[in-house]
Amino acid sequence: MSIELHCPAPLSRHETIQMAHGAGGMMSRELTRSIFLPCFKNSLLDVMDDQAKISLDSGKVAFTTDTFVVTPVFFPGGDIGDLAVNGTVNDLAVGGATPLYLSAGFVIEEGFSMPDLQRIVKSMAAAAEKAGVKIVTGDTKVVEKGQCDGMFINTSGIGVIREGLDISCANLKPGDSVLVSGSLGDHGMAVMTAREGLSFQSVITSDTAPLNGLISAILDGVPHVHAMRDPTRGGLAASLNEFAEASGVGIVLNEETLPVKPDVLGACELLGIDPLNVANEGKVVVVVPEEMSKDVLEIIRENADVAGQHAAIIGKVVDDHPGMVVIKTPLGSRRILEMPLGEQLPRIC
Amino acid sequence: MSIELHCPAPLSRHETIQMAHGAGGMMSRELTRSIFLPCFKNSLLDVMDDQAKISLDSGKVAFTTDTFVVTPVFFPGGDIGDLAVNGTVNDLAVGGATPLYLSAGFVIEEGFSMPDLQRIVKSMAAAAEKAGVKIVTGDTKVVEKGQCDGMFINTSGIGVIREGLDISCANLKPGDSVLVSGSLGDHGMAVMTAREGLSFQSVITSDTAPLNGLISAILDGVPHVHAMRDPTRGGLAASLNEFAEASGVGIVLNEETLPVKPDVLGACELLGIDPLNVANEGKVVVVVPEEMSKDVLEIIRENADVAGQHAAIIGKVVDDHPGMVVIKTPLGSRRILEMPLGEQLPRIC
Repeated sequence: MSIELHCPAPLSRHETIQMAHGAGGMMSRELTRSIFLPCFKNSLLDVMDDQAKISLDSGKVAFTTDTFVVTPVFFPGGDIGDLAVNGTVNDLAVGGATPLYLSAGFVIEEGFSMPDLQRIVKSMAAAAEKAGVKIVTGDTKVVEKGQCDGMFINTSGIGVIREGLDISCANLKPGDSVLVSGSLGDHGMAVMTAREGLSFQSVITSDTAPLNGLISAILDGVPHVHAMRDPTRGGLAASLNEFAEASGVGIVLNEETLPVKPDVLGACELLGIDPLNVANEGKVVVVVPEEMSKDVLEIIRENADVAGQHAAIIGKVVDDHPGMVVIKTPLGSRRILEMPLGEQLPRIC
Repeated sequence: MSIELHCPAPLSRHETIQMAHGAGGMMSRELTRSIFLPCFKNSLLDVMDDQAKISLDSGKVAFTTDTFVVTPVFFPGGDIGDLAVNGTVNDLAVGGATPLYLSAGFVIEEGFSMPDLQRIVKSMAAAAEKAGVKIVTGDTKVVEKGQCDGMFINTSGIGVIREGLDISCANLKPGDSVLVSGSLGDHGMAVMTAREGLSFQSVITSDTAPLNGLISAILDGVPHVHAMRDPTRGGLAASLNEFAEASGVGIVLNEETLPVKPDVLGACELLGIDPLNVANEGKVVVVVPEEMSKDVLEIIRENADVAGQHAAIIGKVVDDHPGMVVIKTPLGSRRILEMPLGEQLPRIC
């Protein structure tokens, strides 16, 4: 789905970001009015007070934060802007919340291109519209050239949690099925290959996307979801190891069912990286009672656009080896999928 | 008030931050468990899901965000940690909200000292305790040496707004009095003099402090507050110009009543900076109907510790020159206090 936003051209007299754009005076105001307000336009933000005043129905509220430092800021399939919106939308959605309101905090390097900033802000606005959330409060700081690399964006988010859910990384039960909503490792390898200047038969594209629509469909169809997570930093390996540890259970994956695209696998082999350690930005891991796994797979395939074609039941929760994730190869041998140490993929998100 | 927190010594095997501390794997987990969780300890954070699940009474909720890039990270009177907590607490409080929950998003440069990080985190925890808020969700990214200058911290915050208030920068009425809760320019000049290595008769100390207690006392005592703001970036000049413009009124200040400490004035003269353009981090500007101004002054003096001794009624709202702030000197001459352009005081907060 492509959303065209009609943000006016920047009124700013400056072609690059200046120190004064972050100092809270006239130029801060000009930046806000020429770049941010026209794109993020909504009645809560437009008030321009130091805080947004929002109405929430009573009940449980989910609150999350994430800072995005990805380099390069533009990569195949997305940029730091839609990544920042989708990342926080997804952190709310996997908690069973309907994402509603986002904040945006920018740290921008002096000299950053104003047209690039506008492109990123437009991309955030389009991602917010697609996900059905509003960016209602924000902040911009500028640091001197060389004191930050391009730009960093923090997004925090608020959502309202559906009643009657009990989704947690501590809720896995032996016998549960583990599913993933599409192919693994796309985002991390899109950024790495862009950064390293590697080229393959086709360009590897980030999977950055909002998951709230898909997750809402899953929760509508299958009320007894035990755990959900979007496997970002640390990839599938980190998410499943956290699940296994928090729930005191083991997880067994069938290697042949793990969906990894050939180009992503090729890039991983070239760089010596396990695709299961690589960040995804538009995939969800779902753990449900075994009898519901086919229903969930069906819902994912119906609701996840083309990404859903790679959705799969990839393993199960077991009593054995609590806290440990094991991969079973097609030949029957087993290896441990460890929690990644973490040094291989800097600044992926 | 001094709060001693019993955070254990870091369990980390590392004396400095490594790239892998931000990559979502084992080392991220170790950092979280050894540094963040012991200091920020609360039941919402300890769950370690991707989002905090909080219960809010129904009603209006305030939501705000701020990123802190102050350099140096330690300065007389505070550090980037308590500044980040107090800044967001104050942005909620000036909206008439009771601050409740904060997020913390860190961007840390590879090689940053682990003991310094712990000192900053302890300072955040102490500030949160003093303000009565909980840090319930967080995120840490690490960027390579030279890709950010030390550390940046984003805090976002949620609070519940008192019923029956109508506080907004657009609510000033001719005849209203303008008050400030203490001396002006302390924070900005504390950071600038520390950075420039300037010394004066006494060390200029930041006023970083939570304002929610004071503001709560003001709202308890005087229900008809028209506007409030903490004059941070851009100082008093920026806050009052925004008020005047948003409300379509003029503001007249009496120069002789503006509280600026002699050392702060000296530092400002040396650096060629107007103290009214300098950031404060523990002061509030309050606009109330004239007949309530003495009550507000009284409440401030009773509730703002030593800072309150410099509280003053500094001016009034007028029909004349809408959108403009004018300073009247003791000799009767007038000058315009303009919205600062903003380039003089980089990385103050």
